[in-house]
Amino acid sequence: MSTQTPAAETPAAETTAPTTDESGALRPAADGYVQPAVDVPALTRLLDGRYAEVRALVRHNLVEHAEILTDAETLSRADYRDRVRDLTVVLAATGQTGMGFPVEFGGGGDVGASIAAFETLAFGDLSVLVKVGVQFGLFGGAIQQLGTERHHERYLRPLITGELLGCFAMTETGHGSNVQAIGTVATYDVATGEFVITTTREDAGKDYIGNAAAHGELAVVFAQLEVGGEGRGVHAFVVPIRVDGEPAPGVRIEDDGLKMGLNGVDNGRLWFDEVRVPRESLLNRFADVTAAGVYESSIENPNRRFFTMLGTLVTGRVSVGAAGISASKVALTIAVKYALQRRQFEVSDDGEEELLLNYGMHQRRLLPLLARTYALHFAQEELSTQLHDVLSGVSDDEQTKRELESRAAGTKALGTWHATRTIQECREACGGAGYLAENRFAALKADTDVFTTFEGDNHVLLQLVAKGLLTDYASEFEDMDQLGMARFVAGLAVETVVEKTRVHQLLERVRDLLPGGDEWDQEAGLLDPEYQLAMLRFREEHMISGAARRLKRGVDQGMPAGAVFSRVQDHVIGAADAHMERLVLEAFVARTRALPEGDQKVALNLLCDLYALSVIEADRAWFMEHGRLSTQRSKAISREVASLCRKVRPLAGDLVDAFGVPTEMLRAAALIGDLA
Amino acid sequence: MSTQTPAAETPAAETTAPTTDESGALRPAADGYVQPAVDVPALTRLLDGRYAEVRALVRHNLVEHAEILTDAETLSRADYRDRVRDLTVVLAATGQTGMGFPVEFGGGGDVGASIAAFETLAFGDLSVLVKVGVQFGLFGGAIQQLGTERHHERYLRPLITGELLGCFAMTETGHGSNVQAIGTVATYDVATGEFVITTTREDAGKDYIGNAAAHGELAVVFAQLEVGGEGRGVHAFVVPIRVDGEPAPGVRIEDDGLKMGLNGVDNGRLWFDEVRVPRESLLNRFADVTAAGVYESSIENPNRRFFTMLGTLVTGRVSVGAAGISASKVALTIAVKYALQRRQFEVSDDGEEELLLNYGMHQRRLLPLLARTYALHFAQEELSTQLHDVLSGVSDDEQTKRELESRAAGTKALGTWHATRTIQECREACGGAGYLAENRFAALKADTDVFTTFEGDNHVLLQLVAKGLLTDYASEFEDMDQLGMARFVAGLAVETVVEKTRVHQLLERVRDLLPGGDEWDQEAGLLDPEYQLAMLRFREEHMISGAARRLKRGVDQGMPAGAVFSRVQDHVIGAADAHMERLVLEAFVARTRALPEGDQKVALNLLCDLYALSVIEADRAWFMEHGRLSTQRSKAISREVASLCRKVRPLAGDLVDAFGVPTEMLRAAALIGDLA
Repeated sequence: MSTQTPAAETPAAETTAPTTDESGALRPAADGYVQPAVDVPALTRLLDGRYAEVRALVRHNLVEHAEILTDAETLSRADYRDRVRDLTVVLAATGQTGMGFPVEFGGGGDVGASIAAFETLAFGDLSVLVKVGVQFGLFGGAIQQLGTERHHERYLRPLITGELLGCFAMTETGHGSNVQAIGTVATYDVATGEFVITTTREDAGKDYIGNAAAHGELAVVFAQLEVGGEGRGVHAFVVPIRVDGEPAPGVRIEDDGLKMGLNGVDNGRLWFDEVRVPRESLLNRFADVTAAGVYESSIENPNRRFFTMLGTLVTGRVSVGAAGISASKVALTIAVKYALQRRQFEVSDDGEEELLLNYGMHQRRLLPLLARTYALHFAQEELSTQLHDVLSGVSDDEQTKRELESRAAGTKALGTWHATRTIQECREACGGAGYLAENRFAALKADTDVFTTFEGDNHVLLQLVAKGLLTDYASEFEDMDQLGMARFVAGLAVETVVEKTRVHQLLERVRDLLPGGDEWDQEAGLLDPEYQLAMLRFREEHMISGAARRLKRGVDQGMPAGAVFSRVQDHVIGAADAHMERLVLEAFVARTRALPEGDQKVALNLLCDLYALSVIEADRAWFMEHGRLSTQRSKAISREVASLCRKVRPLAGDLVDAFGVPTEMLRAAALIGDLA
Repeated sequence: MSTQTPAAETPAAETTAPTTDESGALRPAADGYVQPAVDVPALTRLLDGRYAEVRALVRHNLVEHAEILTDAETLSRADYRDRVRDLTVVLAATGQTGMGFPVEFGGGGDVGASIAAFETLAFGDLSVLVKVGVQFGLFGGAIQQLGTERHHERYLRPLITGELLGCFAMTETGHGSNVQAIGTVATYDVATGEFVITTTREDAGKDYIGNAAAHGELAVVFAQLEVGGEGRGVHAFVVPIRVDGEPAPGVRIEDDGLKMGLNGVDNGRLWFDEVRVPRESLLNRFADVTAAGVYESSIENPNRRFFTMLGTLVTGRVSVGAAGISASKVALTIAVKYALQRRQFEVSDDGEEELLLNYGMHQRRLLPLLARTYALHFAQEELSTQLHDVLSGVSDDEQTKRELESRAAGTKALGTWHATRTIQECREACGGAGYLAENRFAALKADTDVFTTFEGDNHVLLQLVAKGLLTDYASEFEDMDQLGMARFVAGLAVETVVEKTRVHQLLERVRDLLPGGDEWDQEAGLLDPEYQLAMLRFREEHMISGAARRLKRGVDQGMPAGAVFSRVQDHVIGAADAHMERLVLEAFVARTRALPEGDQKVALNLLCDLYALSVIEADRAWFMEHGRLSTQRSKAISREVASLCRKVRPLAGDLVDAFGVPTEMLRAAALIGDLA
């Protein structure tokens, strides 16, 4: 439970909101509020958006192969892995996993469709999802994004069908987040025209690599390129790791063994002992080595080159964030349905026990998470559209690309943390029954746990977001590490820092909206989106410029840049978090504003208000500390959150139904019975 | 991550605290602070307390049978269950599991020792722990506490050796927390002198019952007693459920199947179809039925009788809370050791990457949890002593018993939520490596997840705590349900409510200490324990009387009691939480104050300050809203928490070593290597 204690204590809370009868139906309240009716199919269409057809295909496939959810529990680990591989190939044949690849090689030629398919697939078994992500997103994506025609011609068609399975071998035991420091080396041998791939230390072995332990034939291996005795930084190579089911010569493979979850994916470790691959194995979109051993690259700066290569990971991050949000939808669907049929304790004289969702505490536990899930859905939708536009070339200037990378990183962090928190709360809200494997929470919790870590550790990703904010996505600074960031900021005048931040303009706008003192407190309605946005914008701007000032001041005072960064780190990460929350709210507000007047708009506005005020409530201490909230208004926000929960309560069943999670993916017959 | 954003932004934070060199060693700071040295063995002795010998025995046994940690991963579920059963019997032979039973039946005659043994056992495989808890705590405890000599003579000796395995069959599929509403019935048949046990509805089957699916021969079954057509409320009966490995006649048994964790425990479901047991099967300590069918009880009021029987569950709650705290110690030991050897990213020019624990964010993530673990340890120690005194008859008046029950309920809630949160944070802090089963987090997370639910759902337990606070543990109100509580409170004048609350006296004291306005803000030191205690006492009192007022006002305004309770529920639960945090801080402060001057006291004072200020910081919005914290002082608290984290940082390794978790229980060789 939260350590935040509720503030609402005035009679207003007990008198102004509409009254709920036993079934949760509302009578019109004194303030004229009339409960909207939710048209579930229409809301599902809205959520599904422009890829409704793709999502329908995936939902159909999920139901068709629903038995994988029980296979996950009954098969041996080895058999489960094989089952997941087989199902991946079957799904590939339906076209749902190849949407993002070029049409000429058998793909769908639509990145947005590919994200929508992946997002929907996350309603089902998550080992299948991650296997698909490894094969088509990471391995396939690396071939497509980092390779050139020779690689596309050779590999894309068989990898899209799943005939050729491969790995994305970047992470090493000794280095996860700091990829630039990996210890695998690829030395060019001009005599033979080959690269020699070598793991230089035991802990430089590739680790946690999907498809490595059992099924992969090839790996895209990231290694420090050395040409003519000169280090050229990290590059990617296609390396055979398995031939006829046995490790290729010079390759040592180890199974990562049992994991907390995702045991249908064969994660493993790879070590290379002078493995020779032809010169053409270098994925040479951004750099190449001639036969004579001359290194050539279109990108001069080695750091920039590295981060450009890493930028191709953006699709993976967008996908994982989407999957986290989908997993949250599954958990909430089960927990809300359970709370709509489970009764506990009598609270009136009619002798019947009360429905769980009629308890205030239960509403407080689940409904803000429901609102946040909707908010993240729309933020994710906007991000997917941006990704689609950048990768399709609709908009691909450098600034847009960097902003996309930042937004993908931040949304991934928010979406996956949300999944961890939501699934945990939903499990607890289902009591002991939630602990049984047949009720899905066991798998949801175990499988999603690593989402906060893979495709970039969430804290490191928020640092990336902060770097962009602090440096205004300046091209010359995009490749800075933490040390560089601290020094860069320290080298500027404070005014320049604030000037450089994108949100400087916002600051002006916020100043107009928040004329200082408690004027807003007295005048503005809590349910005015402009007020909510102004609050989140003010917090973001204040935190970014504050972090910049602290970095600068520390260095100016003579502290080592590392020590300064360490001390300001939570502030820096908090600023990135504030930035992301603002983007999420903007996306949600924009989406609801664009709707025609009607019940759907009323319902989504309730959720949007609940999301916005929950965010402000959670950080109300900060707003009070910074003069943006009086103590009276802070209490009023807590009361409004409780009131919004009561208004959302009668809609809750419809709101989870609208997610469109197939009944078969809920299982949980014992928990939700007929409501499933 | 927390949605709370840090407030510290003033130069003070960057200048006053001591400077850390790369190894984390501190130089004396400008303010004269000198880092204490931690004598690890001495601190372990302090933590182990008066049961050091018992704990040594359990640690020895854990190491002796450490292979169970790998068996859990490699054996089939059926074999793992058998292995856990066999190990339970082996442990029983060493005496460690029977410490709480009377000496005359082969027990140790020391309840405190029994809790200490259980607490220490929680460093190891948690299926073993729960199997031990089911057999000796729940089943054995029910026989001992609810039965009389005839049951003790017959069952205690074989159950203490583990020769006779049994179940505690209370929870039903349809009713968990609301035991009074269960649907199993025991009808007395005067003609044969037998009770007839019947499951009246499919969802009245006993569920999640440990030892039911495979190993149990007997079950203590809770059922509605009916004598001569009259319902007498819930009573407990000894019922054979399995004969020669097969279900006893009339008993249907179903396996609960795969669970999120604890798969070494054979949880199952039981249905009874007119199962006949002799009259002597009634556990008749508090009530009996004569052969002629006359119902007799020493406790007149049926509700009171029920809650007296339930009061015997207190040992189980004390044990589960202790286990949660122990599991947190294991997780923190691994995560802190990992952070003391894992390096990531360069932050200075020496070319070496930085240790994780030197990052401010990493300190913020782990060290307040470390401080809270110490705080809960001492609170738990005080609770165990109280339990020992009550069960040994040292102090057993009704008021003391009720306060013990309340405190056990609240500490269980805090300890198990702490485990969930700590294990999750530690797993994330260990990155992808934390996801591998060999590194313990998988089992820790999955096994402890249900701790927040079993032996009482945490929210329901906090409501129990609140009920005690609101009714001053008045004997005539102890048996009230939620509806009764709301009505009771509504029936009083507000002054009476405040009068009745135990904390009324505290209010006076707090008023003296907090003379109003911001006087404290200007004068008192944040590190003064009297200030910290006054803050937590004020919050507690204010929330309890506020909740009482809201309950009363709602009913007075004519709202149905159920609706009022629903709205005030989060406030009620928040008040209970505030009460518990105050008790925890009092225990920690008392323990450190009693220490002789020296480094150990300095180190524990750092942790106590960090705990207290973290609690205040987490709820600083509430304190500001209620005029107990200025915005300036609120920011100062955040800065002080960060500063305390930096001071605890160099001690962190020693502080986790002092928990005395055997190296073999850490596994995690890949994570912590030589530091294990």
